Amino acid sequence: MSDDDTTIPARRRFLVQGAAAAVGAVAGSARAEEATPPGTPEWMKAPGADVGSQTYGTPSRFEAGLIRNVPKGLKQYTSASSRSPLQDLDGILTPNGLFYERHHGGIPDIDPARHRLLIHGLVERPLVLTMEDIRRFPSESHIYFLECSGNPGFEAIKGKTASDLVGLVSCAEWTGVRLATVLREAGVKPEAKWVVAEGADAAALTRSIPIEKCLDDALLVYSQNGERLRPQQGYPLRVLLPGFEGNMNVKWLRRLAVSAEPAYSREETSKYTDLMPDGTARQFTFVMEAKSIITRPSGTQRIAAGFHEITGIAWTGRGRIRGVQVTTDGGRTWQDAALQEPVLNRALTRFRLPWTWDGSPTTIASRAIDETGYVQPAFEDLTAVRGLKSFYHNNAVVPWRIAADGEVANGYA
Amino acid sequence: MSDDDTTIPARRRFLVQGAAAAVGAVAGSARAEEATPPGTPEWMKAPGADVGSQTYGTPSRFEAGLIRNVPKGLKQYTSASSRSPLQDLDGILTPNGLFYERHHGGIPDIDPARHRLLIHGLVERPLVLTMEDIRRFPSESHIYFLECSGNPGFEAIKGKTASDLVGLVSCAEWTGVRLATVLREAGVKPEAKWVVAEGADAAALTRSIPIEKCLDDALLVYSQNGERLRPQQGYPLRVLLPGFEGNMNVKWLRRLAVSAEPAYSREETSKYTDLMPDGTARQFTFVMEAKSIITRPSGTQRIAAGFHEITGIAWTGRGRIRGVQVTTDGGRTWQDAALQEPVLNRALTRFRLPWTWDGSPTTIASRAIDETGYVQPAFEDLTAVRGLKSFYHNNAVVPWRIAADGEVANGYA
Repeated sequence: MSDDDTTIPARRRFLVQGAAAAVGAVAGSARAEEATPPGTPEWMKAPGADVGSQTYGTPSRFEAGLIRNVPKGLKQYTSASSRSPLQDLDGILTPNGLFYERHHGGIPDIDPARHRLLIHGLVERPLVLTMEDIRRFPSESHIYFLECSGNPGFEAIKGKTASDLVGLVSCAEWTGVRLATVLREAGVKPEAKWVVAEGADAAALTRSIPIEKCLDDALLVYSQNGERLRPQQGYPLRVLLPGFEGNMNVKWLRRLAVSAEPAYSREETSKYTDLMPDGTARQFTFVMEAKSIITRPSGTQRIAAGFHEITGIAWTGRGRIRGVQVTTDGGRTWQDAALQEPVLNRALTRFRLPWTWDGSPTTIASRAIDETGYVQPAFEDLTAVRGLKSFYHNNAVVPWRIAADGEVANGYA
Repeated sequence: MSDDDTTIPARRRFLVQGAAAAVGAVAGSARAEEATPPGTPEWMKAPGADVGSQTYGTPSRFEAGLIRNVPKGLKQYTSASSRSPLQDLDGILTPNGLFYERHHGGIPDIDPARHRLLIHGLVERPLVLTMEDIRRFPSESHIYFLECSGNPGFEAIKGKTASDLVGLVSCAEWTGVRLATVLREAGVKPEAKWVVAEGADAAALTRSIPIEKCLDDALLVYSQNGERLRPQQGYPLRVLLPGFEGNMNVKWLRRLAVSAEPAYSREETSKYTDLMPDGTARQFTFVMEAKSIITRPSGTQRIAAGFHEITGIAWTGRGRIRGVQVTTDGGRTWQDAALQEPVLNRALTRFRLPWTWDGSPTTIASRAIDETGYVQPAFEDLTAVRGLKSFYHNNAVVPWRIAADGEVANGYA
């Protein structure tokens, strides 16, 4: 009936039969507690809440704990981050209310009617654009991931949950105008090599973007997952550079200075550079390399012996995910996971592998392979090259250790 | 760099140049008001709000008006609907907070730990499943639209906005388990022809689903756009029947009775049947046929002469949208709109056409063509067959009249 449905191959069908018993067993435990089919619950005995009783919907009160993961005990929260609760999310999209955050000067409260975008520098015609101007350009929508380059730092792999470890990644459908279209209006001069983007936050966050990216797939974005950007995501306007490290996707965008040189701003000198073992620093490491993590089962969850679907997310700043391999025996063997279609360019890709746990302690992990053939490295392989002084661009495999009692824990800790 | 980018064909590039002047003109008016580039706005002069200062994010206070469209002056709001604000949405996804609602007994407040799904009737092994049981089955995620069959009724085409007219359609990424997988656990008997689904709301909403659909692409869904279903969308569990009319996608699902006959419930006899001109009624009209609407420019918006991107959404319960045609001269000529990739099975499809309005009164409209070759009908063609006594399954073309002053209004009214 539908030609993109995930078909269940013969091997998988067999394992689904394996699942049947496990599910039956759990259902059995529900029945034990409640020997007859459930009676009429109280929520069927009186009318429920009115339609539109909320001005803007929220999740159920029973999901009140499903919020972003804010580190506790920081000295301040204006230059800080919060992580998506990856272990409790399904599919590839992150709802706007749970999208990860990273701010450098807090979240500004911008009146879109008064917001302006200035385009100047090496252009024929400097422009000052209103939001209304920007919305009149031809638009595009794309589903792209966004990831902080410090997700996690090299020493920050001590977290307990999938969110603690790599929750600074999320994915959404973005709508806006090609940056190239707007730059064409201004007329970029031949000597232009960079575009310096500045945010209208208190940090005036500033990053330099190579002109090639600006004239390729870069977007000026005003909507996320259908609605206007949230304040946390740059309302009313941000840059979106598919596959590039998060903080280059400048939020609350107010200025694009076209120039021959990069700005060498704070965020591309003292921060967001990678200190190598020999004391030199890698600079302008834009692209987020291939990465993946198992989100279920994952840290702090507890599983019983029997059937489980291992599932997680994979992504690459270089294009599409070609495959994800999963080990359930601590890295001795790897199996190909199924990828949920459609596998989109620079979007999260959901992977799944049916698995029956025999109850003995083991370690599970995933590794992503992208369309260039690049394979997500083990932590040891990554640090052999990059050392341990780096903070950004740790895309190593994340192992989960499963104890005999079914408790799942960070395999690094 | 990315192979699925929307390329701008030569013709469109020309029109973008046409846009330049218009954008320049509007930017000029911004400059007239503010002769120099804007100074430092107050939101840059002090740190903004803390990260995680909200437990669950909300849109900007400047978007407080962007909420669901609830009809005013109803006698009660427990059996009622609210519409998505289509004219203010971009892309193809609807955020959960703005997803359309239709309830028949209000919104129940269900404790997922106490919720059960009973599967009985013509099965080998009746099952009572907890939510934990259901989440242990192999999962799938798909982006599908959902539409109320009364969107709009045949007499309800008097609305002003795109939301008033066809706001009972939305689109999301749904995650759950194939209904076929769960039915296989229970063991469907050969004489089974229908599955009767019952909700745990005060209306105990009941619909009969053909067994063929249940064994095909039907899902039991627990997540929407990454997070758990909202209460308005059936938390903690609903049926999802890709392409079938909205109310069959039973929310708050508590019971599946496998049977040889349909239930002939209230919602498939007195309601959700289509009264024909000869006095007979069409029953079990499951599939939502191809449809589209221009969302910008649309009713109550006001446009200026010059460049505009005409954009809207198209969908079909029969599979993929093959094309969308747009008229800007009241139906005399039709042009092919560009479709935003990826065009997904039974999902909303965003279409766009660049257009320069010369300032003279006209009527614009879109018509969808699906992969079966079916063409969305004009209202006169639809009613010639179906008469005016029907209420459901009006998928006629929606025309927008543009007056000399740029005011856009419902072309039917």
